[in-house]
Amino acid sequence: MHRNNPAVTFLTDFGLQDTFVGQMKGVALSHCPDAALVDLTHGVSPQSITEGAYHLAAAWHWFPEGTIHVCVVDPGVGTARRAIAVNVAGHLFLAPDNSLLSCVLRSQDVGAAVDLTPDGGEGTYVSRTFHGRDVFARAAGRLAQGAALSDLGPAIDPNDLKRFEPPEPRFETDQITGEIIMVDHWGNAITNISADQLGGPDANWSVKCGDLTIAELSSTYAAVERGNPVAVISSMDTVEIAVRDGAAASRYDLRSGMKVDLKKQL
Amino acid sequence: MHRNNPAVTFLTDFGLQDTFVGQMKGVALSHCPDAALVDLTHGVSPQSITEGAYHLAAAWHWFPEGTIHVCVVDPGVGTARRAIAVNVAGHLFLAPDNSLLSCVLRSQDVGAAVDLTPDGGEGTYVSRTFHGRDVFARAAGRLAQGAALSDLGPAIDPNDLKRFEPPEPRFETDQITGEIIMVDHWGNAITNISADQLGGPDANWSVKCGDLTIAELSSTYAAVERGNPVAVISSMDTVEIAVRDGAAASRYDLRSGMKVDLKKQL
Amino acid sequence: MHRNNPAVTFLTDFGLQDTFVGQMKGVALSHCPDAALVDLTHGVSPQSITEGAYHLAAAWHWFPEGTIHVCVVDPGVGTARRAIAVNVAGHLFLAPDNSLLSCVLRSQDVGAAVDLTPDGGEGTYVSRTFHGRDVFARAAGRLAQGAALSDLGPAIDPNDLKRFEPPEPRFETDQITGEIIMVDHWGNAITNISADQLGGPDANWSVKCGDLTIAELSSTYAAVERGNPVAVISSMDTVEIAVRDGAAASRYDLRSGMKVDLKKQL
Repeated sequence: MHRNNPAVTFLTDFGLQDTFVGQMKGVALSHCPDAALVDLTHGVSPQSITEGAYHLAAAWHWFPEGTIHVCVVDPGVGTARRAIAVNVAGHLFLAPDNSLLSCVLRSQDVGAAVDLTPDGGEGTYVSRTFHGRDVFARAAGRLAQGAALSDLGPAIDPNDLKRFEPPEPRFETDQITGEIIMVDHWGNAITNISADQLGGPDANWSVKCGDLTIAELSSTYAAVERGNPVAVISSMDTVEIAVRDGAAASRYDLRSGMKVDLKKQL
Repeated sequence: MHRNNPAVTFLTDFGLQDTFVGQMKGVALSHCPDAALVDLTHGVSPQSITEGAYHLAAAWHWFPEGTIHVCVVDPGVGTARRAIAVNVAGHLFLAPDNSLLSCVLRSQDVGAAVDLTPDGGEGTYVSRTFHGRDVFARAAGRLAQGAALSDLGPAIDPNDLKRFEPPEPRFETDQITGEIIMVDHWGNAITNISADQLGGPDANWSVKCGDLTIAELSSTYAAVERGNPVAVISSMDTVEIAVRDGAAASRYDLRSGMKVDLKKQL
Repeated sequence: MHRNNPAVTFLTDFGLQDTFVGQMKGVALSHCPDAALVDLTHGVSPQSITEGAYHLAAAWHWFPEGTIHVCVVDPGVGTARRAIAVNVAGHLFLAPDNSLLSCVLRSQDVGAAVDLTPDGGEGTYVSRTFHGRDVFARAAGRLAQGAALSDLGPAIDPNDLKRFEPPEPRFETDQITGEIIMVDHWGNAITNISADQLGGPDANWSVKCGDLTIAELSSTYAAVERGNPVAVISSMDTVEIAVRDGAAASRYDLRSGMKVDLKKQL
């Protein structure tokens, strides 16, 4: 089956200074000139698998079913770590088997997985340092061009894929303790506390992180005066700590992994 | 009407570190898999509507008629500020109604405008903090896929759209006073003084800004020795202050908003 | 001949803060809405032709034959330097004639070249400062849309194109002296010493650069403990100096142009 303009996304820690991302795209286009190539981000901190996993979690499900996601944060490139492809909710993920897909694999809808490691095709050149290009982009191009997952390698058990358990918030009476999982471009701190754990629009909560306490959740950044801290529901539908027209992270020294305490306001 | 490969551009203050731009593209492709997605820039300074407006002014008209431009610098996201779509010279602009389109709306050819705020479709999820994805990218995808502007919301009067008046140069006898409106990647300072206000190729002008005086306009950077300041006509067809193979802005402490004086050389 | 989705790549020193890259893409799409636009990199250091030439060398051959490469590092824009288009191995390169194509032109398969300088079409606007948009992107769009190279300008002798000679390693008995040609995003230092000059997998070599000596070549980054220096074969198939999960360049003060000595280990 040849799809029209299948989307292929790229998420890496490669940055944009070099041509590594371009090289991957060249390989994908060599197999499927019609692919719609989209960058998720190449700004993952070098070798930070956890950060890559959260970025992927935020983005993949906004793409149409059938999208192919090339995910490369790969400090173990060239070692015995497997290269994998897995179908989750009709999306196809290509990645090293190093827990980069941890958040994606929490889906209820994990399907077939294959081992790309013995990447088919006699004589195909595979470098020891750039499987993003030589294994993953090539597999993406083949999938976009119409290959089935099973054409890419032997089936493996998706339950055997490496993963970490993302930290879960802790619930006590009228209190939730979570943590910051990301700081974004504006300096907003995104937590792992889901809006749907807050008990509806009538409940209100104070938010405490480090030295900062915010008395209540607001519905928009503009609910407070410029330069003031504000807690809102992020675009990932979790609690977010921001400063209106400012950068909360640098102002209040907020970093990934810091504890965040919510207390119900009665 | 379904167009082949309609172009959809993106201009934001989102940066490239996170997946926000990718999420917007995923939503657009979900509606129109054939869209040609192009970044104008995501490097607008956070919340700087004025800077975004100038960047948009420099770029949009280089695209073919029918292009859809998603423009998001949106500090008021989630408030009562309107979300708008407007046809200018056959291009379709999607933006918050916060004066980001000011330069575009100076065109002689402003057409229909609609209010996207009550973004149609029952049950469509709209976050309070990311209308770039939930309102603007969605509307862009629908337009690319063939929807008419009038399908997206009720008509509004384009004369009511928020705008600022970009500063205009002041003319006196043999003297023009303008200002720097942008500093680019190389450290070139772009002014708002149009080449067509200079009276043809035979007229010459000295250029003064802060402590720097340049005796005459040159036709290329290479008209002076390396490391020397030079005034040329920019790619926006306005007076530009540069240093050959160097960075004028850091060398001479040039910033947006600084006055620039041209004096006619007799 | 109109190709489906021809690929057009872009390599510049424009950065991503401004809309210059977007403007070029708008012009290309105006001529060929079906073109697949791909960024190689826009992170070439301002005016660094040599750095641009190496980046291009690393990337272009990963694209399918017929790809059009727009290459713009152009400190002489607006001067008498020629604008050129040249066919190398079935790829079409558009660039200023300033040695930016030096590495590409070392191919065995250099074909026809034309002079774009008198860029055809009466009344076509050409700025003095942005030929990336007004000459090169326009020519790329025309080629993508089906124009022949010969439609773009008069034939010129490809042997007359400006080029520099990339530095070649020096061979002595059991010793090779090369140099660092690039430092990448992770701080890996890429040399010009090809793997195929090392005499097969059984030969081993020590690597010395500045104060750093590495006793042997390894096959992967993970062959050493975290934080330790390691020499591997890069994705360009040359010797590379890295630090596992770290940045070799800043740690050991490695820079482009530094000598690298390999000694055969007996």
